[in-house]
Amino acid sequence: MFAKEVYVRRRATLLNSLREAGEHGLVLFVGNAEAPAQYKDNCYKWRQDSSWLYYLGLDEPLMGAILDIDSGAETLFADDVDIDDIIWMGPQPSVRSKADSVGIAFTRPYGALAEGLKAAAGRPVHFLPPSRYYNTLKLQELLPGAGPSEALIKAVIAMRLIKEPVEIEAIDAACALGYEMHSVARDAIQIGIIEQEIVGKMEAVALGKGWGVSFPTILTQHGETLHNHGHAAVVEPGKLMVIDAGVESNEHYASDFTRTYPTDGKYTQKQREVYQIVYECNQLAFALARPGVTYREIHLATARKMLEGLSALDLVHGDLDEMVAAGIAGLFQPHGLGHNMGLDVHDMEDLGENLVGYDQDQQRAKQLGLGSLRMARRLRPGHVITDEPGIYFIPALIEKFKKEGLGGNFVNYAKLESYYDFGGIRIEDDVLITHDGARRLGPQRLPASPDEVEEAMRK
Amino acid sequence: MFAKEVYVRRRATLLNSLREAGEHGLVLFVGNAEAPAQYKDNCYKWRQDSSWLYYLGLDEPLMGAILDIDSGAETLFADDVDIDDIIWMGPQPSVRSKADSVGIAFTRPYGALAEGLKAAAGRPVHFLPPSRYYNTLKLQELLPGAGPSEALIKAVIAMRLIKEPVEIEAIDAACALGYEMHSVARDAIQIGIIEQEIVGKMEAVALGKGWGVSFPTILTQHGETLHNHGHAAVVEPGKLMVIDAGVESNEHYASDFTRTYPTDGKYTQKQREVYQIVYECNQLAFALARPGVTYREIHLATARKMLEGLSALDLVHGDLDEMVAAGIAGLFQPHGLGHNMGLDVHDMEDLGENLVGYDQDQQRAKQLGLGSLRMARRLRPGHVITDEPGIYFIPALIEKFKKEGLGGNFVNYAKLESYYDFGGIRIEDDVLITHDGARRLGPQRLPASPDEVEEAMRK
Repeated sequence: MFAKEVYVRRRATLLNSLREAGEHGLVLFVGNAEAPAQYKDNCYKWRQDSSWLYYLGLDEPLMGAILDIDSGAETLFADDVDIDDIIWMGPQPSVRSKADSVGIAFTRPYGALAEGLKAAAGRPVHFLPPSRYYNTLKLQELLPGAGPSEALIKAVIAMRLIKEPVEIEAIDAACALGYEMHSVARDAIQIGIIEQEIVGKMEAVALGKGWGVSFPTILTQHGETLHNHGHAAVVEPGKLMVIDAGVESNEHYASDFTRTYPTDGKYTQKQREVYQIVYECNQLAFALARPGVTYREIHLATARKMLEGLSALDLVHGDLDEMVAAGIAGLFQPHGLGHNMGLDVHDMEDLGENLVGYDQDQQRAKQLGLGSLRMARRLRPGHVITDEPGIYFIPALIEKFKKEGLGGNFVNYAKLESYYDFGGIRIEDDVLITHDGARRLGPQRLPASPDEVEEAMRK
Repeated sequence: MFAKEVYVRRRATLLNSLREAGEHGLVLFVGNAEAPAQYKDNCYKWRQDSSWLYYLGLDEPLMGAILDIDSGAETLFADDVDIDDIIWMGPQPSVRSKADSVGIAFTRPYGALAEGLKAAAGRPVHFLPPSRYYNTLKLQELLPGAGPSEALIKAVIAMRLIKEPVEIEAIDAACALGYEMHSVARDAIQIGIIEQEIVGKMEAVALGKGWGVSFPTILTQHGETLHNHGHAAVVEPGKLMVIDAGVESNEHYASDFTRTYPTDGKYTQKQREVYQIVYECNQLAFALARPGVTYREIHLATARKMLEGLSALDLVHGDLDEMVAAGIAGLFQPHGLGHNMGLDVHDMEDLGENLVGYDQDQQRAKQLGLGSLRMARRLRPGHVITDEPGIYFIPALIEKFKKEGLGGNFVNYAKLESYYDFGGIRIEDDVLITHDGARRLGPQRLPASPDEVEEAMRK
């Protein structure tokens, strides 16, 4: 938790911006409940709602808050523990002292939330989209039929998008842990073991030093399968292992790095050629990142760079600009160049990707790849984004392009067939936009160039 | 997953027992959805519903099943992936082949569940209590206002309580992993480190070899706080560290062991005296465990043993049987001796503790300690239970007993004050009831006696 003043200031800024937008009424925040894994007393690891953490800080289940836009009154809804709870949980601070720790004047029991909402007295009640099923149920109960407030969503996004110095410090800390976790993983790669064993060692770092992983770890020798969370395969020689993983700091900020390793420590010539292209795209994106440029432009610049490299391998051919316009890069990288990162690894994804990642003047593309770009906005100091180009050879996608003529005359399908067992490569760093450029987050960069990776694996 | 025949047989047995109980209509099973940790695409580790796993086996989200008690017809509701899913997820087996793998004749899309329930045609629809908020929402949508079926709950409990040989094998495997995890934890205890670092090493074993932990690990130097999941404290000399942790096997069966270690490798005289009592209670429970005895009797026998030991320490005084009857043991052990274990660590807790742990002829006690006993039933071969006595010195509870006169004249409050900073001790094994006695599960027993523990810590 940060100092009280941080939360007081954030809530004041939020209410001010709503007032300036002409809004009235109440703002309702509903914190998370414990999430049962099997039954109500066997829960997943406790995680508070991110917007709640941002404005209210209190890292405990079953809390609500009502802020009055018009009067500025703030009330925390939570229950004090009784003597029986103290026997099982040990002495606990009072709700009053919790409210004080984040500068809230009034407190009421959790069960009084419905009663508290009567203060709206006909004025609107603004709330965010629920990110969990519990919150859906609770909002249905409190405000049947009501929907989330776009004004509130936009006001929250505007604030959370620009990271404050305390947040950047927390993200740097998460990246330091992420660096350590990735280093442990790289050192653990060994022919003949089960992928799961590497994942266990990674989680040991995440849990031993931080809150845990910031998202379910991707660790696979089939990097071309982008949504692959299985870890049952034996590590085989000659493969590429994509490791996409992050640590959540104890302050609940995320890191998110990807590296792609040759399982036996040395890239084959064919792997190195493709790796080099992805590496150059990653370097280019970082070199271009600065205030005033849109991330959409940078995505397209890396797409052009990628097609240039793939042309040299004779996998595509034609005019580079025409290929970019035709979306040919999407055949190889069907995802976007990056996303916002903060309290969530895909920051604020529960608030709506288009509102988070796009300006009013931007339309989301329909094209494969560019259409999946989660962050297209004009960059501003304080943005924290990922830089994660990748090249994947996805047989089902290549066959679809071929069959449906989606690649025009640009794609050399005959040669592509020899890449059907290649897998995929992705290289991802976390980047802060500064006042005059960009900085990679974390104390040092994970080995990234093919030589650096091989050198690190020799140790 | 087990062989197809296992699931076919279990469902046939279930429907038969419902028919024999005079029930008609449909049985509806709703499998789990992914559980969002932050937003819908950043979820906790996937875990299927345990009763679904028991009857349907399929370990994937968003599936339903309808079994017709009267006709015996069985239908799986799930969606096949389309070409876009294949691009992101790789090639996937069809719903048809999944249904075949567990012997189900009919398949329909997940969205047809409501339509499928029309086959009830006025007959009752039996379903189990939902264990997660998603399932609550889904059941509200499918069957607004309806409640779970006690007939179905009882039929499921009767089956899941008696473990089959394949299940015992899976639990033995989970216990082997639990043994390894506890050994790693014991070896990692070191003055000056943060408790969290030990937890990280434990989870490395759980995730490296199994599904993960079977419940959030308890690791604390304040064992007297029974619901304590914090791990931020520095390991200090002279403390008792309670480690209560289990691994879930990849077949989703749990282990659950507790040991209590002296942080610097050697119990003080005072610690050893109390530890010896808990150890003898644990030994006694195992010695008494056999078919025909109720676990309630065994709980009470260990309570008597505990009071005998505490008398010798002059912490209580009086007639042992009178003290047992007055519930004095509950002051020191406010929880029950053990619980059922299987696919859930507290097996079937979502179906209702009283139905799972109590026979028709047993009433749950109100007394502290005995009243918290989760498993009171008459033991039968195939029961898998925990044996986990503990002694805790909980200042708030002792003060309550003193103030409210709950300890009668049996408690030596003056001497108890010198135990206010003692902490707590618990020793827990997992036990299978066999046809003529009992067997501790897992390939070997974790060091348990004070000498064994100190010996293991010297290594």
